[in-house]
Amino acid sequence: MKTNFDLILRKNIKKLKSYSTEKVDCKVKLDANENPFDFPMQLKEIILKDLFKHLFNRYPDPDASLLKELLAEEIKVDEDKITLGNGSDELIQSLTLAFGSKSSLVFYPSFSMYRIISTVCNIKTRVISLDKKFDIDIDTTLRYIKKNQPSLIFIGYPNNPTGNSFSKDKIVNIIQSSSGLIVMDEAYSEFSNKSFLPLINKYDNLVILRTFSKAYGLAGCRIGYMIGSEKVVEQVNKVKLPFNLNSISQRIGIIALKHKKKCNKAIKIIISERARLLRKMQKISAIYTFPTEANFILFRPKVSSKTVFKKLLSNGILIRDVADNKLLKNCLRVTVGKPSENDAFLHVIEKLK
Amino acid sequence: MKTNFDLILRKNIKKLKSYSTEKVDCKVKLDANENPFDFPMQLKEIILKDLFKHLFNRYPDPDASLLKELLAEEIKVDEDKITLGNGSDELIQSLTLAFGSKSSLVFYPSFSMYRIISTVCNIKTRVISLDKKFDIDIDTTLRYIKKNQPSLIFIGYPNNPTGNSFSKDKIVNIIQSSSGLIVMDEAYSEFSNKSFLPLINKYDNLVILRTFSKAYGLAGCRIGYMIGSEKVVEQVNKVKLPFNLNSISQRIGIIALKHKKKCNKAIKIIISERARLLRKMQKISAIYTFPTEANFILFRPKVSSKTVFKKLLSNGILIRDVADNKLLKNCLRVTVGKPSENDAFLHVIEKLK
Repeated sequence: MKTNFDLILRKNIKKLKSYSTEKVDCKVKLDANENPFDFPMQLKEIILKDLFKHLFNRYPDPDASLLKELLAEEIKVDEDKITLGNGSDELIQSLTLAFGSKSSLVFYPSFSMYRIISTVCNIKTRVISLDKKFDIDIDTTLRYIKKNQPSLIFIGYPNNPTGNSFSKDKIVNIIQSSSGLIVMDEAYSEFSNKSFLPLINKYDNLVILRTFSKAYGLAGCRIGYMIGSEKVVEQVNKVKLPFNLNSISQRIGIIALKHKKKCNKAIKIIISERARLLRKMQKISAIYTFPTEANFILFRPKVSSKTVFKKLLSNGILIRDVADNKLLKNCLRVTVGKPSENDAFLHVIEKLK
Repeated sequence: MKTNFDLILRKNIKKLKSYSTEKVDCKVKLDANENPFDFPMQLKEIILKDLFKHLFNRYPDPDASLLKELLAEEIKVDEDKITLGNGSDELIQSLTLAFGSKSSLVFYPSFSMYRIISTVCNIKTRVISLDKKFDIDIDTTLRYIKKNQPSLIFIGYPNNPTGNSFSKDKIVNIIQSSSGLIVMDEAYSEFSNKSFLPLINKYDNLVILRTFSKAYGLAGCRIGYMIGSEKVVEQVNKVKLPFNLNSISQRIGIIALKHKKKCNKAIKIIISERARLLRKMQKISAIYTFPTEANFILFRPKVSSKTVFKKLLSNGILIRDVADNKLLKNCLRVTVGKPSENDAFLHVIEKLK
C-alpha cells in the first residue's frame, strides 16, 4: 500500500517552520548568546578525572538526584520543586505536553521556541505584540487572559532578542490574574541580577526556567532546570522522558555547582564587556542600540541589516539576523564576546556610515 | 486567582502512569538490559583526550553531522535517511508528535514507552495482545489496520521483555498493508543479528530505531538514531528540539564508531553468556525459561515471582519484575551480565524449589 504522508502527518506539523541556526564557518562567533569563555581548564581536569571512573554503560539517574540536591541548596528551594531537562527546550515541551489543555500565550518579539513547541504539541498559540519600548502591553494581555485563561504564558526575563526585562509589576499582575501557568524563562538572569525566584513559594502558578548553557558556559551539555510548585513538577515528571538528562551532563553539572565561584568569573567579565560594548555602540551614529540586561545586544543599523550582517561575516564575524517585518525591522543581535572579539566587532561597526 | 490544575492539565495526562525504574542498591544490576561491560578503558582515554580540547560553551551541532556521516557509512544508508535523538525514546516521541494524526498500534507485552509516549502526545492507542508464543496475532492486526489505518505501529525486534523476534513474514505483511509508519525498534538487534535495514529502501513507511545504549555500552550517553525515508526524516527533524543531542555524546558516539571492533567484543561475550545462562536455566525445573534473541531472558518461576525477586535482592541481585495479570503472569526478566554476575544469579535460582 502506498504511504499517504498527507494523511498521517498531523495538520499542525504540515506548515511548521522549525527553529533554524546558521551553520557558517567564522572566526568570531557572536550569534547564539553563548558564553564566549570555554569551561575553565582547571574544572575540565576535574571533570575528566571524574568521567574516567564513571560508568558509561549504565542508564542515567532519571531524577538527577545528586545534581538536584546541590541545586536545591544553591537556590534555596525544596528539591520537590525542581526538575531537570535536556536543556530548557525540553522543559518547555514537557510543560506544554502536560498543561496544554487550552491555549498558550506568547509575546512578540521573543524566543521563537515557545511558539514552535506549542505548534508541535498541537495547542493554539496567541501572540501579543510588545509595546514600542519592548515592554508588555498589559491591557491587551489582561483582556486576553480574562477572556481565554490560557494554560501557559511564556515570558523571557530578560527577553530574547530584545535584551530588556519587562516591568515586574506587570508580570505580577499577570500571575495574579491567571489560572494557568506563567513560565518565566530566566536563561539570562545571571546577567540581569533579576529573578522571580523569591516569589516561587507565593504563587503556585509561577514556573521558572534556568539553564547551565549561558552563565555556566555549558551550552554543549544541555542542562536546563525548572522550579515550580510540587503539583507542576509532579506532572512534568510524569510527561518527561525517563532518562532525559544523560549521566555525563549530570556529572558535569555537579562539578560546575561545586565550583560555582570559578564559573562565575566569566559572568563578571561578560557584564563589564557588555557595558563597554554598549557605551561604544551608543556612540555610533549609524546604528541605534537598544538597552540590554542580557549577554547580547539588539541594534538597528541605518543601512540595510543584511548588508551589515554580510560585512561582518566577510570579516569572519557571525552575529544573528533577527530582522523581520514588524517590531524587529532591520534589527540585528550581537552576543557579548571576549574583549578581543568585541573589539573585532566594533572595528567593523564603527566604520558604518 | 487560584490555579485550577484540573482545568489546565490535559485529560490524557491526568491518569497517566509514567515509566518507573527501580532505585535499589545492589551489587549485581541485571534489571535494565544494560551492557554489563563499561566502555573500554582504552577508548575512554581517547574520549577524555578529545573532550579536553572540546568547547563545552558552544551549542551542539543540531544535525550531529559528523556522527551521522560515520553512521551512514557504517550502515550503508544515505545520510538523508538518518536522524539522531537523545535516546530512541526521544525519536519515538518526535515520530508520534509528527505523525500522530490517527491512532497508534502497539503490541502487548512490549516496551511500555510506546504506549506511554502515545498517551503523552495525546493520540489514541490500540493494544493488540501477542499470541501464546509471543508472536504477532496477524489476523487481528491486519483487521485493525484495514479498518483504522493507524498512523504508527511500534514493533520491538527483538521484542522486550519477551526476548523473541516476531516472524519476518508477518511484519512484511503489516508493512505492505499499512499506509502509516511501521517503527521497528531494533535496540537489541546486535544480539539477534536480524534487522529490517536491508528493506529500508524498499518501503517508504518503514522506520528503524537503533541505539548506542545496548551493544555499544553507552546507555549513559543517550544516543539513539532513526533510519527512514527522507520524507519521514524531514518531518521528524522539524519536530525535534534543535539541540537535542548534546555535544559530548556526539563526540563519544563518533569515537565509538571509529573503534567499533573494540566495542563489539562485548557483544560476543554477551551472546555466549546468554547461551550458557539459557542452557543452565532450562535445566532448572522450578522455572520456565522462554527463548530469547536479546541480551535478556524472560522466565516464570513456579513459586511466586515476588518471592524470587526478593530472594535475589536479598543476595544483592536486582532483576526486573515484569509480572502482570495477563501474558506475563508471574514473569521475571533478567539481563545477561558478566560471567561472575550470571553465576551469582544462577547460584540463587538453582536453589529454587
